[in-house]
Amino acid sequence: MSYEKLPLEPLFQKIDELKPQFIERLERAVAIPSVSGDETLRPQVVKMGEFLITELTALGFTDIQRKELGTQPPPVADANLQLPPVILGRFGTSPEKKTVLVYGHYDVQPAAKEDGWATEPFTLVHDQAKDILYGRGSTDDKGPVLGWLNVIQAHNELGWELPVNLVVCFEGMEESGSLGLDELIEREAKEYFAKVDQVTISDNYWLGTSKPVLTYGLRGCNYYQIIVNGPGADLHSGVFGGTIAEPMTDLIKVMSTLVNSDGLIQIEGIKEMIAPLTDKENALYDEIDFSVDEFNAAAGSETCLHTTKQDLLKHRWRFPSLSLHGIEGAFSGTGAKTVIPAKVIGKFSIRTVPNIESAKLDQLVFQHVEAEFAKLKSPNTLKVELIHDGNYWVSNPFNDSFTAASKATQDVWGIVPDFTREGGSIPITLSFEQKLGVDVLLLPMGRGDDGAHSINEKLDVPNYINGCKTLGGYLHYYAKA
Amino acid sequence: MSYEKLPLEPLFQKIDELKPQFIERLERAVAIPSVSGDETLRPQVVKMGEFLITELTALGFTDIQRKELGTQPPPVADANLQLPPVILGRFGTSPEKKTVLVYGHYDVQPAAKEDGWATEPFTLVHDQAKDILYGRGSTDDKGPVLGWLNVIQAHNELGWELPVNLVVCFEGMEESGSLGLDELIEREAKEYFAKVDQVTISDNYWLGTSKPVLTYGLRGCNYYQIIVNGPGADLHSGVFGGTIAEPMTDLIKVMSTLVNSDGLIQIEGIKEMIAPLTDKENALYDEIDFSVDEFNAAAGSETCLHTTKQDLLKHRWRFPSLSLHGIEGAFSGTGAKTVIPAKVIGKFSIRTVPNIESAKLDQLVFQHVEAEFAKLKSPNTLKVELIHDGNYWVSNPFNDSFTAASKATQDVWGIVPDFTREGGSIPITLSFEQKLGVDVLLLPMGRGDDGAHSINEKLDVPNYINGCKTLGGYLHYYAKA
Ligand SMILES: [Zn+2]
Ligand SMILES: [Zn+2]
Ligand SMILES: [Zn+2]
Ligand SMILES: [Zn+2]
Repeated sequence: MSYEKLPLEPLFQKIDELKPQFIERLERAVAIPSVSGDETLRPQVVKMGEFLITELTALGFTDIQRKELGTQPPPVADANLQLPPVILGRFGTSPEKKTVLVYGHYDVQPAAKEDGWATEPFTLVHDQAKDILYGRGSTDDKGPVLGWLNVIQAHNELGWELPVNLVVCFEGMEESGSLGLDELIEREAKEYFAKVDQVTISDNYWLGTSKPVLTYGLRGCNYYQIIVNGPGADLHSGVFGGTIAEPMTDLIKVMSTLVNSDGLIQIEGIKEMIAPLTDKENALYDEIDFSVDEFNAAAGSETCLHTTKQDLLKHRWRFPSLSLHGIEGAFSGTGAKTVIPAKVIGKFSIRTVPNIESAKLDQLVFQHVEAEFAKLKSPNTLKVELIHDGNYWVSNPFNDSFTAASKATQDVWGIVPDFTREGGSIPITLSFEQKLGVDVLLLPMGRGDDGAHSINEKLDVPNYINGCKTLGGYLHYYAKA
Repeated sequence: MSYEKLPLEPLFQKIDELKPQFIERLERAVAIPSVSGDETLRPQVVKMGEFLITELTALGFTDIQRKELGTQPPPVADANLQLPPVILGRFGTSPEKKTVLVYGHYDVQPAAKEDGWATEPFTLVHDQAKDILYGRGSTDDKGPVLGWLNVIQAHNELGWELPVNLVVCFEGMEESGSLGLDELIEREAKEYFAKVDQVTISDNYWLGTSKPVLTYGLRGCNYYQIIVNGPGADLHSGVFGGTIAEPMTDLIKVMSTLVNSDGLIQIEGIKEMIAPLTDKENALYDEIDFSVDEFNAAAGSETCLHTTKQDLLKHRWRFPSLSLHGIEGAFSGTGAKTVIPAKVIGKFSIRTVPNIESAKLDQLVFQHVEAEFAKLKSPNTLKVELIHDGNYWVSNPFNDSFTAASKATQDVWGIVPDFTREGGSIPITLSFEQKLGVDVLLLPMGRGDDGAHSINEKLDVPNYINGCKTLGGYLHYYAKA
């Protein structure tokens, strides 16, 4: 792909120059244990929001707003627990420029040294030999959030004008279900976000460890439960075994009909809804930098269902899958317990892809489960229901923002990025697209092995610094598109 | 059944007279919360053992021994936790008399008012209107244990000689696996228990609520686990769903082949081992006082697999059954979690009956599970193993002790008892039979609805008092046999 290069070298040099300051900024952010899932740490989440306001103010952002989202709904220990605020801000309001909204989150997953961290999780540690930054939030999502601030600082120090108007939207509840965010986007769609042309999210990862990617698709997820009800209370298998219809027997029979060991979903009507694989799409998979070996290394086993990279990737993000997660109400401890559980709830979910309609899928699932249960002629009762659903998302990887991000990536990394999709879902992507009616770009900063929710979460320094360059370059290319 | 009645009226009258004292004795016993499963209450279990020693001493027992069983093996919070002692004692040592060993346990299940008890669990409450005694341990097993002491007291006050030598063996760990008891029986078989002719255990219940029973059989239990191992760690179903062989899929498939919803075991070779049902045995079931309605009431549902009393009882205790208990390692909480569990362990058990050989059964189970797993052609690994087994037990309901107990029951209750078996197992029964080489009689005191391990455990006063008469009468008839 050839393109007209913009003269961004001074920006990239300035970012290199500022590296020590950018690392120091991340150090201060990581030091605040803004764990949204731990009520006792809620003041730290709020403190992290205030840290961002201070930084935004110093950088010259305007119209900075601290949007309160009200009381956190149950279950909570403190009934008056306040949700952390969403921080909004603007850099530039020129009617001649396009407006890009960047989303990120300033809360993090829990972390404790005792979990097995090699270093203190809330102290950013720079391993000079490997040039890696270790710390909770380094890659998810404080590094990328500060990336946008770093871009502004570099422009300021160069005396450069930002080529677009930037709107930032930073939330503090992402790791805990983004409570209140959908409503905020809804409320602000025609207010604070009125002029937004494009949304960019930097909160996912490269597929592997060496090649940058741009992400244009996500699978959806419909999560179901099957409830089988029998006796009035748990019974002893010595006294009742052989005389009563056991709910576990029925549930296991029904669950065994959902998917085969080769991963093929056994519910009729689903595969007919899958968008056909075009030759053009099929060819895309050949280019992508990935291997079955890399997959096995990540899974920690050699139990991949596919033998080629192409098949593997297709089944990761463009075909649906069904996983059996577990059973509530049955014996789940170690050792032996001779219980006949009275009520058992089987949990499974289906990852959805274009063009599976969520409501149609529910219908097929319910029909299948009920038909299989009917075959058992059991006196027990069965109920099947949807717990939650979230739609798949696919964008056009050849639109203005993807093209701009691809050019910036080539400038910075010297390579055309892979265009990938992801197997999981990032619900906020769809919310922004639908509520603002604009395109969304997923522009990841970190690598596939960063360990976002694990111990020893890290961000490679080259990813942090080149990531800042890519974010900055992207704004320039997008402005010209 | 006609038989020569012994002149036991004075004994029965004396027991009626002593009723207030017997209830008061039980009241003092229930007041000691001797919960063996709660380490913090271990001193109370010991105190309960000392209470028995005091009572036995006062009644004239000799050679009273407090047998220590050493340190409780892990898992325990206190590594030095001592097992409660087994209390041994003798009443009479005449070489002319037969010697009967009576076993009971002085520990109880946990209980707390908050669990839903209508009264304080460790306060014996006499509901005068219903003539019922409520309290933890009332029926399991403090009532029956004190029953033997009450019989001695009645004899003492009458100035009657006991017609047999009595040996008592009371343990304090029955509700927590009878740790150390097997070894003690082994050690004392040729020592303290050397002269024992017969063992009587009063630690089970009538089948229903109105007719006394004698119990001559118990099912065994072989408990298995199937371990399926896949990836190196739990994975996210968004990222890995559709690309990796999921252990849950394989486990559910295999578990679904073990038993049908009608309760029929699907493992080949088991039904061929079941002892054929003779006409004589078949006829026994017609007499037994029981009904499908009573069963449904106990189960709290109308999900019985059988429509006649006869079928129901046969499947309760003379046919094997297979129960799926649950899965360790899978998601078992409420709500939704998108996990692909890396290692899952399915738990199931088979209740065994004559003439199923335990080792042969293991072989059939292992073969079946391995063959079903092989059909799946999964890259995951499977292991199937026995967690524990305990053999079935069947005695001759026409031997001396059953005949004696039947006569005593007729004297006291005016009715021929039902000869029943139980679906569950009481492992100590087989231990005594095998290690002492003598017959064992199960002579229950309480009713089928006593709620031994539930809230509001109770013992009807008529069962307590007539139970004492039956225990006493039994010793007299057995002495003459
Ligand atoms: Zn994130
Ligand atoms: Zn995260
Ligand atoms: Zn008991
Ligand atoms: Zn018990």
